[in-house]
Amino acid sequence: MALSESELITRYFRSCGAQRRDVALGVGDDAALLECPPGMQLVATTDTLVAGVHFPPSIPAAAIGHRALAVNLSDLAAMGARPAWALLALTLPEADEHWLTEFAAGFGALARAHEVALVGGDTTRGPLTVTVQLLGHVPHGRVLTRAGGRAGDLLFVSGSPGDAGAGLALEQGRLEAPPGAAPYLRERFLLPTPRVALGERLGAFASACIDVSDGLLGDAGKLAAASAVGLEISFEALPVSPQLAQALGPEAARALALTAGDDYELLFAVDPARAAELERELPRAQWNYRQIGVLRAGAGAAVVRDGTVMDFSHSGYQHFV
Amino acid sequence: MALSESELITRYFRSCGAQRRDVALGVGDDAALLECPPGMQLVATTDTLVAGVHFPPSIPAAAIGHRALAVNLSDLAAMGARPAWALLALTLPEADEHWLTEFAAGFGALARAHEVALVGGDTTRGPLTVTVQLLGHVPHGRVLTRAGGRAGDLLFVSGSPGDAGAGLALEQGRLEAPPGAAPYLRERFLLPTPRVALGERLGAFASACIDVSDGLLGDAGKLAAASAVGLEISFEALPVSPQLAQALGPEAARALALTAGDDYELLFAVDPARAAELERELPRAQWNYRQIGVLRAGAGAAVVRDGTVMDFSHSGYQHFV
Repeated sequence: MALSESELITRYFRSCGAQRRDVALGVGDDAALLECPPGMQLVATTDTLVAGVHFPPSIPAAAIGHRALAVNLSDLAAMGARPAWALLALTLPEADEHWLTEFAAGFGALARAHEVALVGGDTTRGPLTVTVQLLGHVPHGRVLTRAGGRAGDLLFVSGSPGDAGAGLALEQGRLEAPPGAAPYLRERFLLPTPRVALGERLGAFASACIDVSDGLLGDAGKLAAASAVGLEISFEALPVSPQLAQALGPEAARALALTAGDDYELLFAVDPARAAELERELPRAQWNYRQIGVLRAGAGAAVVRDGTVMDFSHSGYQHFV
Repeated sequence: MALSESELITRYFRSCGAQRRDVALGVGDDAALLECPPGMQLVATTDTLVAGVHFPPSIPAAAIGHRALAVNLSDLAAMGARPAWALLALTLPEADEHWLTEFAAGFGALARAHEVALVGGDTTRGPLTVTVQLLGHVPHGRVLTRAGGRAGDLLFVSGSPGDAGAGLALEQGRLEAPPGAAPYLRERFLLPTPRVALGERLGAFASACIDVSDGLLGDAGKLAAASAVGLEISFEALPVSPQLAQALGPEAARALALTAGDDYELLFAVDPARAAELERELPRAQWNYRQIGVLRAGAGAAVVRDGTVMDFSHSGYQHFV
């Protein structure tokens, strides 16, 4: 198959994402030309997925396309930003048309769901690696960072962390799960749901926020460090899905919720004086989040059970350790 | 050596680029927070370099850092934009401290020279791949694209294309050159000079512009196609450096200038009615560009010598052909 780079881009990516009126010039020139909305700040992030490191090479191409955008959407969600424009740098061993069709379908569906336009990119030959840069907007003064938490703030997490870690273990054949749980867990790994709408609304309530990508406990430690506080997580309060509890039992499920990666949930702190308003504006049942701890004076993230600090030696995924 | 991802980022990249007042939040959170200047449009591009595809793995890490930013600066130059902010996605087989120090030095020196702040990124483990996303600004209505050329426009190129192709051949041991030429040619490959200042000034003069990255003839064909015109290049008018002529002879030097990649010069079209003004505002001797042809009715890019069209079967680098 001989497909030039420009043919490849035209065929698979020119109309892949959402159409937006603030894109003056999209895919096809040396760069994209974009209109920044007045009164907003620009939020920019990038994340890379490497085959065999961030996902098993065997997973469907649509799941790779979905994930490459989802991990970046999750970063913008953690900042309280609304996503707008993406650039895609795709390195491929070969231009397999079926693979490209599926990849673009997975990427495009999620992009359109969040009104993200694909405005540019680069396609190169090499080991399968996907880097997405995502740009979005946040109203002046409404950005969420990791740094605003204060002692006394309540700590919340969205969704049910640990599911994706179990899904990965299933995908890799390291775990077996009953038929009632396995498909759900596998999908939680393959098609993670970034909490974009929640993040955008949390801009009005949260004092600090981070997305849970490398493991809840490790990411909680990063929020604590950036906010210069300590942080206490109640083991019993950790939300786990019925499916994860069914697959592992409730004990191991909570341990996995603390240490597994790839969840793309939001971990956020809220001043207790704002808690009632948060609950009123963003009802927990509808928005699917739960208090799991508190921020306190000190440093580090501790997990407490029956008044005793638990030891978790592995507190998050590290690339170079 | 055990270096966590956040230690790695702090040590090598937190202070790597320029400091800018429009960066509200740089490296270290889930995303960067940036202030768009009023009255300007945002210009965004991304380019990936894969070891063994875009550069020989043996070249110095500083040259890889320089190149990763230079190729993106060149894209912004081709749009007439002023660069501002970069994100760096770096995939490495291992966190070698010497390599990282040199890479950051090469990237940082070029970034500071162009007042580019490094505002975010991602560091992952895998085969050596560098993706940079570069953001910049252009005044409303002043953007340069590939599409504005018209029949009758004069065609210019900056610098001396072909040098980098010869430098790569030297680097790979496919070419030998006399001692008076080799170091210059090798440096033209290792440390390409993106024409940022020229591109920004051309916004007032050029009808169309593209950067020459995949070979002059192939990129001229892209400009012609985007502008829906034909394009004629005079073989004798092609500028070649004395060093390239010395290494290859003037014939082969011009052929290489047409077909070799990695030049990062600008190819641009100017209405003949503006040519005198262009020469007055941007004197050729100072800005180092030269007329090499004209745009005409029709399609495609032809090279003409003594009134005869020459045949160049290889008209540019293609990743997937």
